[in-house]
Amino acid sequence: MFRENLDGKIFNHMSISTRAALAALFVCLTLNTASAQSLKTDEDALFIKQLFDQSLTKKQAHAWLRTLCFDVGNRLSGSPAAAAAVAWGKAAMDTLGLDSVWLQPCMVPHWVRGEKEAARVAATKTRPAMELNCLALGNSVGTGAAGVEGEVVEVKNFDELDKLGEAAVRGKIVFFSRAMDPTQVQTFRAYGGAVDQRVFGASRAAKLGAAAVVVRSMASGSDDWPHTGVLFYDTTISKRKIPAIAVSTNDGDRLSQRLKTEGPLRIFLRTTCEMLPDEPSFNVIGQIRGADRPNEFITVGGHLDSWDVGQGANDDGTGCVQSMDVLYLLKKTGYRPRRTIRAVLFMNEENGGRGGEMYAKEAARKGEKHLAALESDSGGFRPLGFGFEAEKAVFPAYFDKMQVFEDLFSPYSIRFNKGGGGSDIGPLKAQNALLIGLQPDSQRYFDVHHTNNDVFENVHPRELALGSAAMAGLVYLIDKYGL
Amino acid sequence: MFRENLDGKIFNHMSISTRAALAALFVCLTLNTASAQSLKTDEDALFIKQLFDQSLTKKQAHAWLRTLCFDVGNRLSGSPAAAAAVAWGKAAMDTLGLDSVWLQPCMVPHWVRGEKEAARVAATKTRPAMELNCLALGNSVGTGAAGVEGEVVEVKNFDELDKLGEAAVRGKIVFFSRAMDPTQVQTFRAYGGAVDQRVFGASRAAKLGAAAVVVRSMASGSDDWPHTGVLFYDTTISKRKIPAIAVSTNDGDRLSQRLKTEGPLRIFLRTTCEMLPDEPSFNVIGQIRGADRPNEFITVGGHLDSWDVGQGANDDGTGCVQSMDVLYLLKKTGYRPRRTIRAVLFMNEENGGRGGEMYAKEAARKGEKHLAALESDSGGFRPLGFGFEAEKAVFPAYFDKMQVFEDLFSPYSIRFNKGGGGSDIGPLKAQNALLIGLQPDSQRYFDVHHTNNDVFENVHPRELALGSAAMAGLVYLIDKYGL
Repeated sequence: MFRENLDGKIFNHMSISTRAALAALFVCLTLNTASAQSLKTDEDALFIKQLFDQSLTKKQAHAWLRTLCFDVGNRLSGSPAAAAAVAWGKAAMDTLGLDSVWLQPCMVPHWVRGEKEAARVAATKTRPAMELNCLALGNSVGTGAAGVEGEVVEVKNFDELDKLGEAAVRGKIVFFSRAMDPTQVQTFRAYGGAVDQRVFGASRAAKLGAAAVVVRSMASGSDDWPHTGVLFYDTTISKRKIPAIAVSTNDGDRLSQRLKTEGPLRIFLRTTCEMLPDEPSFNVIGQIRGADRPNEFITVGGHLDSWDVGQGANDDGTGCVQSMDVLYLLKKTGYRPRRTIRAVLFMNEENGGRGGEMYAKEAARKGEKHLAALESDSGGFRPLGFGFEAEKAVFPAYFDKMQVFEDLFSPYSIRFNKGGGGSDIGPLKAQNALLIGLQPDSQRYFDVHHTNNDVFENVHPRELALGSAAMAGLVYLIDKYGL
Repeated sequence: MFRENLDGKIFNHMSISTRAALAALFVCLTLNTASAQSLKTDEDALFIKQLFDQSLTKKQAHAWLRTLCFDVGNRLSGSPAAAAAVAWGKAAMDTLGLDSVWLQPCMVPHWVRGEKEAARVAATKTRPAMELNCLALGNSVGTGAAGVEGEVVEVKNFDELDKLGEAAVRGKIVFFSRAMDPTQVQTFRAYGGAVDQRVFGASRAAKLGAAAVVVRSMASGSDDWPHTGVLFYDTTISKRKIPAIAVSTNDGDRLSQRLKTEGPLRIFLRTTCEMLPDEPSFNVIGQIRGADRPNEFITVGGHLDSWDVGQGANDDGTGCVQSMDVLYLLKKTGYRPRRTIRAVLFMNEENGGRGGEMYAKEAARKGEKHLAALESDSGGFRPLGFGFEAEKAVFPAYFDKMQVFEDLFSPYSIRFNKGGGGSDIGPLKAQNALLIGLQPDSQRYFDVHHTNNDVFENVHPRELALGSAAMAGLVYLIDKYGL
């Protein structure tokens, strides 16, 4: 850029103030609900801009994330680190001058990885053994100290596996090698199209007598990071539990290539992971009590647990710190909520969902009316939208009300989409809450997801801050205007 | 993410096919120009999806960028590396099976940095000398081998400088310390609000007798990278040319802090940069000749030159490889353009703009009718929009025609905005071309811009590919439907 500086062409985006004014105008012209009659859209555009200004200037979410990543690190449910994360969350919330901060107990699974896994392609007549970058899948049983070895059978999907049948699979190690579809612009869709291998592959292969399972990592790109993540032993498919590991995409591709050119290969696996008895743990909750309608709740949350690799930065440290940042920003701007607003750091999203279930159960037990719940669990990247869902009975009306606000987010390139929500807030759906998911750009998420590369350095302070501010803006509007 | 995988909630974005169908429907309903009567929007949505599929699968832009960054590296106008970049561009275009590839000569400035710069705060009674991370500004004169030393005078802007006046400034080193405004969501606007210090600071300070200038780097964050970039000796302000350097934002902030707490400080600078005589160089041009209207042109381009630091990856290797990728993708999908489509790698955007000027001059001389020109020079990040501009006489009509297409880009979260264009295509405006700028998200651009950190690793292959595909899609539509 040279002359752009000199002749003003650099101002190639419509100015925020112009956009906000237009947005306000548009909202005025499109009011279509009774409750929206009282919208003061200039005031709203200005207040939302204040939230963004504060978020981009203070970068409080980023400061919190640093301490979560470096002082606590990764924090799998049931681990001492998860307990440290609970203490961290409580201490952070305690600094905010909230009306109350507390721990909500829940029991969680306690899976431990054990010793560093080993996976290697056995030496052949012409080539030495080839070590694979690997991680045992979460919830997997171990191979035992002696390990298992078997011939590799590669399949792309369950159809191929079933066609091979028991004769070809018994005693073998099944290698699921289907890649995430690179043509999906939303990488979460590509993940959804491939992750059945990781979640159900072990049970499907066990049914046919396999000895173990190797899964090519769920990743958007080609690199050397293995990606862990949950497997589910589905006893309706098979009562046998066999060990399962993920290998990096590069190693998976090398293995596929060798199987094509060299013919049969044997793999040795050794994992000592195991599931221990459930442990007590907690959701961390902070709230600002509503001035007018304290028994109407708006909850924002992320999950505090992570896999036991990396620092759990984008999954989901970012969602936790953004949720706390919503309260911080509302406080900082002097906003006094009409409804009760809560930030919840959910425990055990990754391998059980117990925190989310407990939260909804307690809400129901106490008769708390949850108007809306907003979850950030798609990484701390540049926010592009919010996704909305609710029970059919209320959804069209709720979404119509939300759409009135969409243009207030236009200056920030954020759109409103149907379909959203999130894993931890899902159980609130039955209570007719509007479920909302923050939708950041997803291009980089599956580079780091569930890997040792999910670290603080891979979160950008401005991208993270834009997410916090957008979340705070939406919470403000729902609080002010109701549903 | 756990249960999202199991219950399908992961599909929280509307599917591409649904969006495309809706987009098609919307376009059908909003046709408002005669030429648009013949739009076949389903076909267009599908073809654009093909372009995205190919781009995300082949990642050709990323493959080219790797060779440009590692085989050529940075490439300042007039340098041997810039000549190597021209050869690289010609060779890359030659592989595409285009109708013609050629070099368009232009003379360019030839500035050389000389020896590694030195900038240090002189030792005081209580503290040792403090070295500053620095880079001479582009086009700057050197201090000479002996360097210059003087007392520092800090100002935030030209008003403060002028108020100080000659008595306070003569013989001193002026330190321009105003930061980019962090509350600007579009960081280009923040850059535009601060870069006058870098571009005109030397002339403004020279007018008051200053010995040299130090500028806090133009950057969004706080780090240790100094950012170079052009300065302009404006002889209408002062005939004196004084040396100027940028220091990193961290060092700038430390210096400000020390000036506040310690009082007067002296700085020593030594630079041996100099402007040499102009050198011959080239724009690199490749074209597919239009089947129906060969004398109507659609040009896509980026700039091939870079500053002499880092690898010139995001500024603007990405624009070059995306522009070539447009031709690659149109070829790969078997599209036969009606108009002539050109990719242009412009020379000398950074410190002269000679390539862009020459291109427009030659277009005028040959009577080439440039319908539209699309520039990518804002980094290879996640595309969020296109910005449009043109002469007033044609702009409203052109923009109306473009808006008919906007919803075809909705599945990719790309919007159409007024105001755009770019530096190299700017000279085509007078020929009534529609000027279009690719608008990627800008949060990370000024972390790397004009620094040694502008390297290949900071470009994401999927983000880059989305930009290429969006550009190809827009070129396809303009080619097919005209303006």
